[in-house]
Amino acid sequence: MKMELEQILPGEIERRSFEIITEELGGKIFPEGQEDIIKRVIHTTADFEYADTMTFSPDAVSSALGALTDRGNTVIVTDTNMTRSGIHKASLEKLGIEAVCYMADPDVAEEAKREGTTRAAASMKKAADMAQKTGKQIIFSVGNAPTALIAIEELIREGCVHPALVIGVPVGFVNVVQAKERIMTVDVPYIVAKGRKGGSTVAAAILNALLYKIDKER
Amino acid sequence: MKMELEQILPGEIERRSFEIITEELGGKIFPEGQEDIIKRVIHTTADFEYADTMTFSPDAVSSALGALTDRGNTVIVTDTNMTRSGIHKASLEKLGIEAVCYMADPDVAEEAKREGTTRAAASMKKAADMAQKTGKQIIFSVGNAPTALIAIEELIREGCVHPALVIGVPVGFVNVVQAKERIMTVDVPYIVAKGRKGGSTVAAAILNALLYKIDKER
Repeated sequence: MKMELEQILPGEIERRSFEIITEELGGKIFPEGQEDIIKRVIHTTADFEYADTMTFSPDAVSSALGALTDRGNTVIVTDTNMTRSGIHKASLEKLGIEAVCYMADPDVAEEAKREGTTRAAASMKKAADMAQKTGKQIIFSVGNAPTALIAIEELIREGCVHPALVIGVPVGFVNVVQAKERIMTVDVPYIVAKGRKGGSTVAAAILNALLYKIDKER
Repeated sequence: MKMELEQILPGEIERRSFEIITEELGGKIFPEGQEDIIKRVIHTTADFEYADTMTFSPDAVSSALGALTDRGNTVIVTDTNMTRSGIHKASLEKLGIEAVCYMADPDVAEEAKREGTTRAAASMKKAADMAQKTGKQIIFSVGNAPTALIAIEELIREGCVHPALVIGVPVGFVNVVQAKERIMTVDVPYIVAKGRKGGSTVAAAILNALLYKIDKER
């Protein structure tokens, strides 16, 4: 049992954590633009499986960065308030990007009931309607509900929405693997964690890694 | 590649997920009161490692349930706003229990700077002060910062706080394993996920499992 604390300054903890992650990845090479995102997901989960399961469409990072620097024209839509509250607020404000979650909206609950679907699916439909009305582009972030990811896939296939990025990292046991495999067959920029794992913290980590890329380059 | 969706009603997804978890646990037996909590953590993470790493002090569940049904006298203190926003609001309201996170408070940032510590540690100190002033009991929930867990351990040893429960599930690479091992040496009710893994969603899942226990019994 390791009980002795490592003496380290508060500001050094994150840097040291990423050093350990890099060491334990043992020289594994990632495609350009993906390494910092994958490492941040591992930092958030302490789970090295993500080094093998994280899957990017070729245009995912460039499309996301384009949208995130398109001040006032992009909205991040999450499927949980947890993810929304985990996004780095100062970076969002600096870029003039809004993050919304419609899951707790009364009209979403009504629509879900009427359509016999989940609130998660109905909230994605509401986002697509918002994008059509306002002309804004969407970054979808799904960290919880596979039904949200399935709804996005259908909305894209029907031509109802053209997201700048779909983050597909729902977690769970029913239709999660399938929803992830399906979104990767659609012509859309995506970042997906294959398999059952994912979650609201993973979704927030991917969004923050993208935001920190922009901070770094400026 | 499994692409065919399982046809299932929205209200059935959680029940079916827990069935799959039970099947895959293959008859593993957990001590009384722990099974639903551990299964909810697995449901939240799709990670069966928690079946082996979740560790409870003998009094953890009974002490937590006592505090959560002590209307108006208990405050849940989290180390992230993500966990706070992941707690089932309707259950909290029904029980008259408040959940707070002091991480973003300006006085916490100042105190951390002055003391050369983290905001997470300073926010736990603020909670202990609040408990002393108000006479309220605390359920601490640490899903992110090991420094918060270390601060709680010191506050308990100094007699500054007597929590009804410490949920110790920070995630990461620096002092995480140590902080968890140390809190388990203190005389306090605890629920800990040994090892590096944990997170804000795990902390929220444990709190929600405790809240649902009460809902079920009423």
